[in-house]
Amino acid sequence: MAYVPSQELVAGVLAGEVRAIARLLTRAEMGAAEARPALDAMFRHAGRAHVVGITGVPGSGKSTLVALLAAAIRRSDRRVGIVAIDPSSPFSGGAILGDRIRMGELGGDPGVYVRSMATRGALGGLARGTLEAVDVLDAAGYEVVIVETVGVGQDEVDVARAAHTIVVVSAPGLGDDIQAIKAGILEIADIHVVSKCDRPDANRTIADLKNMLAMGMGSDTTVVERRPAALASPIVVSDPNLPAWRPPVIATSMVGDQGVALLVAAIDGHKSALAQSGEIETRRALIAERRLLKAGEEILRDEFARHRDGKVSALLDQLKSRAVSPRTAAARLLHELHIGGDS
Amino acid sequence: MAYVPSQELVAGVLAGEVRAIARLLTRAEMGAAEARPALDAMFRHAGRAHVVGITGVPGSGKSTLVALLAAAIRRSDRRVGIVAIDPSSPFSGGAILGDRIRMGELGGDPGVYVRSMATRGALGGLARGTLEAVDVLDAAGYEVVIVETVGVGQDEVDVARAAHTIVVVSAPGLGDDIQAIKAGILEIADIHVVSKCDRPDANRTIADLKNMLAMGMGSDTTVVERRPAALASPIVVSDPNLPAWRPPVIATSMVGDQGVALLVAAIDGHKSALAQSGEIETRRALIAERRLLKAGEEILRDEFARHRDGKVSALLDQLKSRAVSPRTAAARLLHELHIGGDS
Repeated sequence: MAYVPSQELVAGVLAGEVRAIARLLTRAEMGAAEARPALDAMFRHAGRAHVVGITGVPGSGKSTLVALLAAAIRRSDRRVGIVAIDPSSPFSGGAILGDRIRMGELGGDPGVYVRSMATRGALGGLARGTLEAVDVLDAAGYEVVIVETVGVGQDEVDVARAAHTIVVVSAPGLGDDIQAIKAGILEIADIHVVSKCDRPDANRTIADLKNMLAMGMGSDTTVVERRPAALASPIVVSDPNLPAWRPPVIATSMVGDQGVALLVAAIDGHKSALAQSGEIETRRALIAERRLLKAGEEILRDEFARHRDGKVSALLDQLKSRAVSPRTAAARLLHELHIGGDS
Repeated sequence: MAYVPSQELVAGVLAGEVRAIARLLTRAEMGAAEARPALDAMFRHAGRAHVVGITGVPGSGKSTLVALLAAAIRRSDRRVGIVAIDPSSPFSGGAILGDRIRMGELGGDPGVYVRSMATRGALGGLARGTLEAVDVLDAAGYEVVIVETVGVGQDEVDVARAAHTIVVVSAPGLGDDIQAIKAGILEIADIHVVSKCDRPDANRTIADLKNMLAMGMGSDTTVVERRPAALASPIVVSDPNLPAWRPPVIATSMVGDQGVALLVAAIDGHKSALAQSGEIETRRALIAERRLLKAGEEILRDEFARHRDGKVSALLDQLKSRAVSPRTAAARLLHELHIGGDS
């Protein structure tokens, strides 16, 4: 396979060519320096897609939900791009979500593009290139881009938050400490989903979630009851007269598509609400800020690696002998590196 | 309660006074600027404790294990400090681990100090001050400092890795995607624990773990079988003639202390092996590097926050209009801020 310069891939991506998309995503994931101008171009061309972040604790059924959601969005004839952070091991080769989805009804649909991005084990650079992958799929013309991450860990949650609509998935039957972690991410939700609601203990989960939301968010949250009658008319999420968006709670299951259809309606409703209230600008500002900080941290890591055997090494010796603290050493290093400067 | 200057707390901590420890830890967790010189002093005084990182997926029984481990270490008359990252919500007020441990046999033992540190929801600064909390307990004279984090997410895993001995906890009966996450952290283990081995499906978990380790690490891993006979003589971990440390697999349960005693022996064996092989220096260098990078990221976040309404704001406008990419904007900002410089 001949090497294609990254700049040439840009034209391919903008034309929606799947091979160009795949190649540029790989370069984004590798953090290849020569792909940087192409990725910068992707960012400038992006901005049309509605980006949906889906997060939840391990075991909440996020991957299954994403597959069902993508299929449901397809029914409205919109193209869907999916970026999934794969928590599986470097050992196993990853691509768990990808495999699952390929096995499902989405297989072979050219209107869906799925990319599983590996975490790099524990060795750093988690989800590097993830937000740039969103840019690529956005620029390639996918109207909806779904980003799926596990809702544990700052980086993972930050990735989900760099979305226009944030969906937090809960599920029945999880253990105590998973529930505790779940509680920590409830606050970021624009939409709550309780998955696996075919399980008999789902009502309990929904009740618990309602209680937690009521405690934490006062009366500002509307709960969509799990009544079949309500499923067909998602009134809470489409009322343009609502003063502010109130995160609905939607019950989904693998049996029957009503919940997922409601989720699509809620996502579209949230998109409309953002536009009508003007809150989309606030959201975009938040996303820009988050991305600026993430990019700064990435530059920092790259510079540290680049000077690993030089300036960094001398400071590490001082640190090892406890002559200076990490904070003091880091401040000196940043000063010496003139980070972001002409070095 | 009168305000005590942070510098005065230093003398209190070095004398092992619990109130001084508690106050300085609170200031570390808050990221209070005036506490910085005191925390720098803590770092310089630290370095004697053996730091044990305990991590594992949600549901693996880490908190229970930490409580049992601390009690077992106490039997050798060493003082134990515990820093636990609490994944529970800002809603609930946290301190899950702290509460559990206080209820257990450790309650009232002045030789054990437990600190639960809250994660800050999804709003950034996860585990800020965690490694400085380790410094404080180290400087206060606790011979063993245990740091417990959930093994999901870069920051969380990094905190566990800033330890001399890293224990990764697995457990039977967890779901598929939890297993996948588990696979991602196996590689960092110095010691593997399979908890909840009173469960009938534990043998399956141990067998699976052995298979994963055999696939990923070749013959370089020694597995301690779950035979009662083996529990009393942890030969694999105490043989000084071993060319390199081979991570043992230790089965623990809440019924019977044999497994936990073996874990103490393994931790002590790993400490000896690090010293005898000289690998402790490599480990210290890795920890120093990790802390330098983390401190650099912290400075970056602080500077971004400080200039939020100034230089940052102008670049955010360019970012929002997609005139520049996040990477380019971040590079410009870092240059303008002269981060780490005289500003």
